[in-house]
Amino acid sequence: MHLNIAVLEGDGIGPEVVAQSIKCLRSVEETFGHSFTFQKGLIGAAAIKETGSPLPKETLKLCKSTDATLFGALGLPEFDDNPKAKVWPEQGLLKLRKELGLFANIRPVKVFPSLVKQSPLSKAQVQNTDLVIFRELSGGIYYGEKTIDEEKNSATDICTYTESEISRIAHLAFKSARSRKKKVTLVDKANVLETSRLWRRVVGSISDSYPDVTLNCQFIDNAAVQMVLNPSQFDVILTDNMFGDILSDQGSVIAGSIGLLPSASVGLKYAMFEPIHGSYPDAAGKNIANPVASILSMAMLLQHFKMNEESNAVVAAVLKSFSKKIVTPDILGSSKYGTNYVGDFIADNIM
Amino acid sequence: MHLNIAVLEGDGIGPEVVAQSIKCLRSVEETFGHSFTFQKGLIGAAAIKETGSPLPKETLKLCKSTDATLFGALGLPEFDDNPKAKVWPEQGLLKLRKELGLFANIRPVKVFPSLVKQSPLSKAQVQNTDLVIFRELSGGIYYGEKTIDEEKNSATDICTYTESEISRIAHLAFKSARSRKKKVTLVDKANVLETSRLWRRVVGSISDSYPDVTLNCQFIDNAAVQMVLNPSQFDVILTDNMFGDILSDQGSVIAGSIGLLPSASVGLKYAMFEPIHGSYPDAAGKNIANPVASILSMAMLLQHFKMNEESNAVVAAVLKSFSKKIVTPDILGSSKYGTNYVGDFIADNIM
Ligand SMILES: CC(C)[C@H](C(=O)O)[C@@H](O)C(=O)O
Ligand SMILES: CC(C)[C@H](C(=O)O)[C@@H](O)C(=O)O
Repeated sequence: MHLNIAVLEGDGIGPEVVAQSIKCLRSVEETFGHSFTFQKGLIGAAAIKETGSPLPKETLKLCKSTDATLFGALGLPEFDDNPKAKVWPEQGLLKLRKELGLFANIRPVKVFPSLVKQSPLSKAQVQNTDLVIFRELSGGIYYGEKTIDEEKNSATDICTYTESEISRIAHLAFKSARSRKKKVTLVDKANVLETSRLWRRVVGSISDSYPDVTLNCQFIDNAAVQMVLNPSQFDVILTDNMFGDILSDQGSVIAGSIGLLPSASVGLKYAMFEPIHGSYPDAAGKNIANPVASILSMAMLLQHFKMNEESNAVVAAVLKSFSKKIVTPDILGSSKYGTNYVGDFIADNIM
Repeated sequence: MHLNIAVLEGDGIGPEVVAQSIKCLRSVEETFGHSFTFQKGLIGAAAIKETGSPLPKETLKLCKSTDATLFGALGLPEFDDNPKAKVWPEQGLLKLRKELGLFANIRPVKVFPSLVKQSPLSKAQVQNTDLVIFRELSGGIYYGEKTIDEEKNSATDICTYTESEISRIAHLAFKSARSRKKKVTLVDKANVLETSRLWRRVVGSISDSYPDVTLNCQFIDNAAVQMVLNPSQFDVILTDNMFGDILSDQGSVIAGSIGLLPSASVGLKYAMFEPIHGSYPDAAGKNIANPVASILSMAMLLQHFKMNEESNAVVAAVLKSFSKKIVTPDILGSSKYGTNYVGDFIADNIM
């Protein structure tokens, strides 16, 4: 198979971790006889510095003209600390998600048996955790109108959801549950928010078409606690953009490191694959960042194109790195292995 | 001192846990020679069932005419599961907070040495945790206009903050930090939300008047992880209504049980004291609910009226119950002690 892949490295550790995924894709090419081409595009702080825009037109064009996008990470503290800035890196990612119509961000959270000990949670709590979060990605308060009234010194964010925005991702979640443990948990704040009550209504009526799947609902405050106390209760979690952002970061606590969790962002036409971690600027250039989240995101890309055998081979190589303890220091404090070495090991073990 | 206290038991375990606080207040009366009177009012599902309204006028009047309000818990699943309901219990609490002008919800999270083992987190992680969350309580998306467009099948929640709403709670947070570890962490989502950027600007400029206090900022997704991984990094956390709701429930994971965490909701004129836990309907009437969150909320009430010695005596009695393992089953699975017994023990040990 031939795939033309857009590569957006972004900021901080982005370039380093994406480099490992490309290394692994080269290995997949050889082992399975495919051909992949890569085209880089600018995004985030790197793009602002070079072009003034966090998402240059060329980047968007690139993502639309390729088969899929591999994304690194973005953000730099110099922008976070300036609340008066008119442009900042994250706008690039948000615009990209919107323009590509990526309405579902799929975030699997698994506990790898050989890493159970790395989780700060007890073995009893985390073992058997195998859940997937379906986070709505192109609506809600992330994209509602934002206003700032300089005179009244007030600011506003609007959160809107429509039935169709909810129903398209809900169907994906129920379909996924069908091939899993047949349970969907809707996470919302229906005791306060009108949008949450719309989610409950829409998801409730969609669930009628999936009689083999159980639906239950949890408030976000409780879900954030359950995610730590008893994550194995979950199968498919369905939630909005903001709650999904918070809950999936929570999920990283279970897995043992935020450097492990991948995601796929999909829409009707395009797909992008992005680790859930940020740009971790303090680690940039130090060869200590964990490349696994990026590599597993790339494995989701392969799966997206039905290259299941290839995807499984990548995951198997990652698991081998865990069991041989070829891991970065976020997983094992005493580890001497760097980003590059771990990437090499995984690439070499794709077979 | 004479205090006239409004008592809103609410739903589920509310009446049971509040009864233990009243028991303890009777003990404080005797030991320290005070006089407390209690007047009950309806709120939540109980109020809806009796009056049709989740906050009857008489209840509001009661809270305004007494010195302080002791609140239990509210909510029942029959309302949660009906997203088309026109009234529901939580509206009563939200309206009460607003009408009483309770703009700051103060939620201390401490790890009690004798309970460190109960936390699902490791001792290294949680020990030395002593933080307090200042959650804005009367603004944000909780109170913005809510609309539902039946035709377009869309719903909207508006999140607004003004400079003055932010600055009044920010000053409380900085003042509190002054008498603590001199650190304020602002939690927001300034890389996405306009309101968060207003928070950063306003809090940033207020921090100039507190040169002895350090300010740092964290995004909510990261803060929710840090709250589990490394809670002892925090001193005072300052955040908005929605993020405060989620983060403080997270805090319960550190302490070992959500049944332990108290809070004080304060404004310029009124004050209410409420555990952070919900109504836990499954436990109602079973004499298994943990009364400690309610009792510690009551201790915050005493402190609010400068009865520091009295408040300390209540806390000391609670600590004694921990070290003697006179605790409910949420703390010690094998415990045979019920709500009532634990309440009696604590009341008897206030000296
Ligand atoms: C960088 C930021 C805008 C982004 C988000 O909040 O969506 C990130 O936290 C994520 O989860 O992908
Ligand atoms: C009951 C609910 C409306 C309330 C809130 O979200 O404020 C509760 O969760 C709390 O934290 O006090």
